[in-house]
Amino acid sequence: MAALGKDTLSTLRGVGTATLTMQLLKRGFRNVFIQDATPLDPARCRFAAEAYTLRFIPMREDLSRPEVLGDPEYPPRKAIEDIPPGQVMVVDCRGDRRAGALGDILVTRLSKRGCAAVVADGPMRDAAAVAAVGLPVFCNGSAAPASITVHFGADIGRPIACGGVAVFPGDVLVGDTDGVVVIPRALADDVARDSAEQELLEEFLIGRVRDGHPTTGTYPPNEDTLAAYDAWRAARDGT
Amino acid sequence: MAALGKDTLSTLRGVGTATLTMQLLKRGFRNVFIQDATPLDPARCRFAAEAYTLRFIPMREDLSRPEVLGDPEYPPRKAIEDIPPGQVMVVDCRGDRRAGALGDILVTRLSKRGCAAVVADGPMRDAAAVAAVGLPVFCNGSAAPASITVHFGADIGRPIACGGVAVFPGDVLVGDTDGVVVIPRALADDVARDSAEQELLEEFLIGRVRDGHPTTGTYPPNEDTLAAYDAWRAARDGT
Amino acid sequence: MAALGKDTLSTLRGVGTATLTMQLLKRGFRNVFIQDATPLDPARCRFAAEAYTLRFIPMREDLSRPEVLGDPEYPPRKAIEDIPPGQVMVVDCRGDRRAGALGDILVTRLSKRGCAAVVADGPMRDAAAVAAVGLPVFCNGSAAPASITVHFGADIGRPIACGGVAVFPGDVLVGDTDGVVVIPRALADDVARDSAEQELLEEFLIGRVRDGHPTTGTYPPNEDTLAAYDAWRAARDGT
Amino acid sequence: MAALGKDTLSTLRGVGTATLTMQLLKRGFRNVFIQDATPLDPARCRFAAEAYTLRFIPMREDLSRPEVLGDPEYPPRKAIEDIPPGQVMVVDCRGDRRAGALGDILVTRLSKRGCAAVVADGPMRDAAAVAAVGLPVFCNGSAAPASITVHFGADIGRPIACGGVAVFPGDVLVGDTDGVVVIPRALADDVARDSAEQELLEEFLIGRVRDGHPTTGTYPPNEDTLAAYDAWRAARDGT
Amino acid sequence: MAALGKDTLSTLRGVGTATLTMQLLKRGFRNVFIQDATPLDPARCRFAAEAYTLRFIPMREDLSRPEVLGDPEYPPRKAIEDIPPGQVMVVDCRGDRRAGALGDILVTRLSKRGCAAVVADGPMRDAAAVAAVGLPVFCNGSAAPASITVHFGADIGRPIACGGVAVFPGDVLVGDTDGVVVIPRALADDVARDSAEQELLEEFLIGRVRDGHPTTGTYPPNEDTLAAYDAWRAARDGT
Amino acid sequence: MAALGKDTLSTLRGVGTATLTMQLLKRGFRNVFIQDATPLDPARCRFAAEAYTLRFIPMREDLSRPEVLGDPEYPPRKAIEDIPPGQVMVVDCRGDRRAGALGDILVTRLSKRGCAAVVADGPMRDAAAVAAVGLPVFCNGSAAPASITVHFGADIGRPIACGGVAVFPGDVLVGDTDGVVVIPRALADDVARDSAEQELLEEFLIGRVRDGHPTTGTYPPNEDTLAAYDAWRAARDGT
Repeated sequence: MAALGKDTLSTLRGVGTATLTMQLLKRGFRNVFIQDATPLDPARCRFAAEAYTLRFIPMREDLSRPEVLGDPEYPPRKAIEDIPPGQVMVVDCRGDRRAGALGDILVTRLSKRGCAAVVADGPMRDAAAVAAVGLPVFCNGSAAPASITVHFGADIGRPIACGGVAVFPGDVLVGDTDGVVVIPRALADDVARDSAEQELLEEFLIGRVRDGHPTTGTYPPNEDTLAAYDAWRAARDGT
Repeated sequence: MAALGKDTLSTLRGVGTATLTMQLLKRGFRNVFIQDATPLDPARCRFAAEAYTLRFIPMREDLSRPEVLGDPEYPPRKAIEDIPPGQVMVVDCRGDRRAGALGDILVTRLSKRGCAAVVADGPMRDAAAVAAVGLPVFCNGSAAPASITVHFGADIGRPIACGGVAVFPGDVLVGDTDGVVVIPRALADDVARDSAEQELLEEFLIGRVRDGHPTTGTYPPNEDTLAAYDAWRAARDGT
Repeated sequence: MAALGKDTLSTLRGVGTATLTMQLLKRGFRNVFIQDATPLDPARCRFAAEAYTLRFIPMREDLSRPEVLGDPEYPPRKAIEDIPPGQVMVVDCRGDRRAGALGDILVTRLSKRGCAAVVADGPMRDAAAVAAVGLPVFCNGSAAPASITVHFGADIGRPIACGGVAVFPGDVLVGDTDGVVVIPRALADDVARDSAEQELLEEFLIGRVRDGHPTTGTYPPNEDTLAAYDAWRAARDGT
Repeated sequence: MAALGKDTLSTLRGVGTATLTMQLLKRGFRNVFIQDATPLDPARCRFAAEAYTLRFIPMREDLSRPEVLGDPEYPPRKAIEDIPPGQVMVVDCRGDRRAGALGDILVTRLSKRGCAAVVADGPMRDAAAVAAVGLPVFCNGSAAPASITVHFGADIGRPIACGGVAVFPGDVLVGDTDGVVVIPRALADDVARDSAEQELLEEFLIGRVRDGHPTTGTYPPNEDTLAAYDAWRAARDGT
Repeated sequence: MAALGKDTLSTLRGVGTATLTMQLLKRGFRNVFIQDATPLDPARCRFAAEAYTLRFIPMREDLSRPEVLGDPEYPPRKAIEDIPPGQVMVVDCRGDRRAGALGDILVTRLSKRGCAAVVADGPMRDAAAVAAVGLPVFCNGSAAPASITVHFGADIGRPIACGGVAVFPGDVLVGDTDGVVVIPRALADDVARDSAEQELLEEFLIGRVRDGHPTTGTYPPNEDTLAAYDAWRAARDGT
Repeated sequence: MAALGKDTLSTLRGVGTATLTMQLLKRGFRNVFIQDATPLDPARCRFAAEAYTLRFIPMREDLSRPEVLGDPEYPPRKAIEDIPPGQVMVVDCRGDRRAGALGDILVTRLSKRGCAAVVADGPMRDAAAVAAVGLPVFCNGSAAPASITVHFGADIGRPIACGGVAVFPGDVLVGDTDGVVVIPRALADDVARDSAEQELLEEFLIGRVRDGHPTTGTYPPNEDTLAAYDAWRAARDGT
């Protein structure tokens, strides 16, 4: 797996998911935004990190028992101690809302271990306590029952589905108040660079709209608007 | 299209949607409340305005491209500059949660142009920024992808479906923390008048319940309660 | 119906639903958490109480009319005046989001009558006003239309479905920020006792994780951790 | 419960559900057609009968056990032996597709006991064998698991929801290849009479359309078409 | 609107929808297959024709009345008499299963008028009688209630959504036992030509597989397989 | 993986899924029946075989291209040539109905290679041609688009979700007209034996019901009925 550019993740932390999805659309990608995963705490949700994947399948009564949780090789428990610092834990819950993917004890441990964020297309258990841990967490609500109530932990480190999107280990995920976008790893450097550029342009454009310009000719910008942008940018950069 | 009574909209701004749906039910209308459109900011969501409609259909890869956004005749862009001041932009997104109907630049422009509110049965892009604009906005969540990711703008000014309800241009929409009710235009004056009356009665009734009266005989009121109401109202009106 | 242990409800008010669902899972119960019922006000949602049930069926135009609301024998109105103090009103709305189960006048009356909480797998009308009453209320959102818009009140005091879970009159419901768990009445005393024990253990365990212990061996606890817990507990209890 | 007119059921057996729903719509009823209940065998599905109701609620592991099936008072088993001959068994399965409402042994017994039909908003077990019994059966597919896998039998003889429609004991249900319509009992005589009349008219009208008449003026009929109908009818009746 | 090539429709009548969707995928189109529209009679479902569109929106009690059906300008009735011979009637029902889009009288008239087929993302009324008319009809089941029970006819000749796909008047629709594909009009000639070619190749390839060739190298074909295909084709064409 | 008993599969081929789900329920398993997978051809659907698994995840535009189908290592293609004779191909399609899991060329090859059956929680392409191949195939309908339209092939030989049920490689799947049951491998021998016994008993019991016995005391059987069964069985076995 090729290394990411050294500024890619830090650049992406400053870029919104609306910008990123537009950059991906321009490259032909329409299915990159995880459905139904919203931040538990909108005030602490910005992150950009490489994906570490955990996959649940439907429970089976003889396997999905409380005893399995004590097995250090049970994938959902192994994942907690194995995820490399700085990565985001991405969990395939098949969108099932009936049981929590993780609870506050496990998320506390992830936080101690330097995990960047948690993203699941399922709920959290004791979501208020999970939110209090302080990690960015994206999920589809809260549910008290433990994961083994409806899931069995199948494996870690495999490609998964999360919120209708393919997530491969090493893909770059970025989250903000809107939710989470998945950037295929090979595109992350390029997308980071172009997104930073787009955000600067949009900062200028919304200012124009606030000043009373119509959207026609402004958004997207025509040549006059782009010339004004170049001037604004030059002034801003002190050039 | 007949003009609305001159106080109709201002009266309706002071009436709750619970009251309005009851007035419409009494006239035989059961399907008037837009499903799954909640206020982005409950503190700024009261509005009453005439409907201006925008309709999306499913995307087609050759049409739903970033380039189309620069065409001033593309209906979703034309709508932003064409909606008459004081009207509410109502968007038919077929309930699709995968892409934002509008983002903060367009909603900023709508606000500048005097638009009364935005109602969509789809999400907003960069919903936190949209909420910060200050317009009443009702939608079904947030989603970073642009509308062209899953939609194509079909037309403006046509009857639409929004949240399972028919909306005709010129219908009167009223929003509060519960959501949005659609009042067929021809009924708006009557409904406004009777709703104001109902709200006054309910103000009295909830006071009675707070004073310990049972709901039986109070809600709905029997003759004794109505007599007490008349007395209370007379006292209140200084008559 | 056998009486509950005298401390059962007060114990349960101090226990989280995550703990309770685990205790029930250990006893073989996987389907005890009401789906899609979240607290209107997370700051006022803790309760534990015996269930009083109300059941809606789909509306019929000749029965579901405003006039029926004035009949003191109409089950949804009779329920308001009949529910014994201290019980929780549990309403079977078939998950329908189109109409409110109850509104602020009825919930005000329930509060006056000493009702412990309201749980519905449907929305509330004028949900902001309902939240202001101060009772714990769990529901699936807000909807302005009155219940008779889509429901007819079938009966009270019968077993019902609520959020995909069976609720029998007299079952013990417990709510917190995650939602509501249904404890079959015959198990309530046992579950209360064991849950209090489990919560104490988890208080200890999360402290260990905050101190840097790995989850392996800690959660669930191995013998060493349990020995440390016994010591901690003895110290805490001053023994 | 007032008796039905003596020819009402036999008349209704000859009338299509499309006609009946139109007659009910003319009387203000829009929600009378059971959703998602299709005939197992379209060649043997015509029936008209009074409703006998059975209600399931979600399973609970300590109640929904194979042993309960041997209890003659368990409502789903009591229903089989209690339903009066000539009535239709209507089962509230909450639309759940995961388990069969009834299987071939129970439907065989219902057939022996003179039951008119079975209607459920859930699947049948061993649906091929159920179809072979020969009773009209309407359901939403086939599923091998027994009802106790996801249900508990709550009661019989109560108002229920079935496929989104209210069904009261004694209502008249009529089935054909399209599905099942529920006629409120008090309307059955009137609806039967007017439906027979409507069917005769439509037999004439479709003939006109087959002869090349445009639908304008024909369907619905204008005065000329009605005059032609009167003539056709008079000729047909030999008057 | 440019004319179609003279053999385009006849070629398309001989091509399967699986082939057509692959040709469209190769051109970048992933969303062209109407969801949940299956043939009423698989033995009579092949068609290729230009689209004529009809759009329903949700019913409104004062508009969706039986009386409206007698108005020759009511779009769903006007459509029946206005659709040009040889075109396919495509109906936007928003996927609603509660009411029939059309019934046997209207479909009989469409057949008389030379309509090529009917495609709706809603059910048919008296579906058995509709099937007996003999036109290719694709829909999502049967439902007895008339369209006005849940719909109002909004307009004809506008772009619509049908089964999650955009349909513009003049697009070419092709149906077979799998369902219906929508070919953007401008692509129809090209797609027709290349699809006929692909079908011939696949006829050869499935013969190879039946003869025991592995799929590797065969499907898709490698150079050897293509050489064998060229030989087979030359032999077949007598060249 | 322990070998199955030598008669287990042949016994299971003669047992219905209704019986098997009851045997599994008696052992505590409630979630073993694949949802929404029905036989393409009810006349050719009986099978019992060990599971070979294939897993799809959501498509990604740069990976899910026609070119990938020519890669012999692409899991969905590798699976076709790798599945051991006698096993059933089980495909995790996440229930997505928009694209076919397999088409007639691949199913023809599977049939040539001795595959026992195909089970998918997605549709088939050119389902009529797939049905004509003659293999038992269970799926949720037909859809013309190729799998790469909405899927990417993630892996083979891993535990999967199929129709809401966990399927491990080597589990025993049994299909009949109702659908498909998943028997955890370790239970297959026991379940086979007890199911054969149960089927014999039910053959006797349905005969009793046909003879007019009430279900009470018969189904489930009381001691008298069991004695009669023993006699019947002895007579039948010539003992």
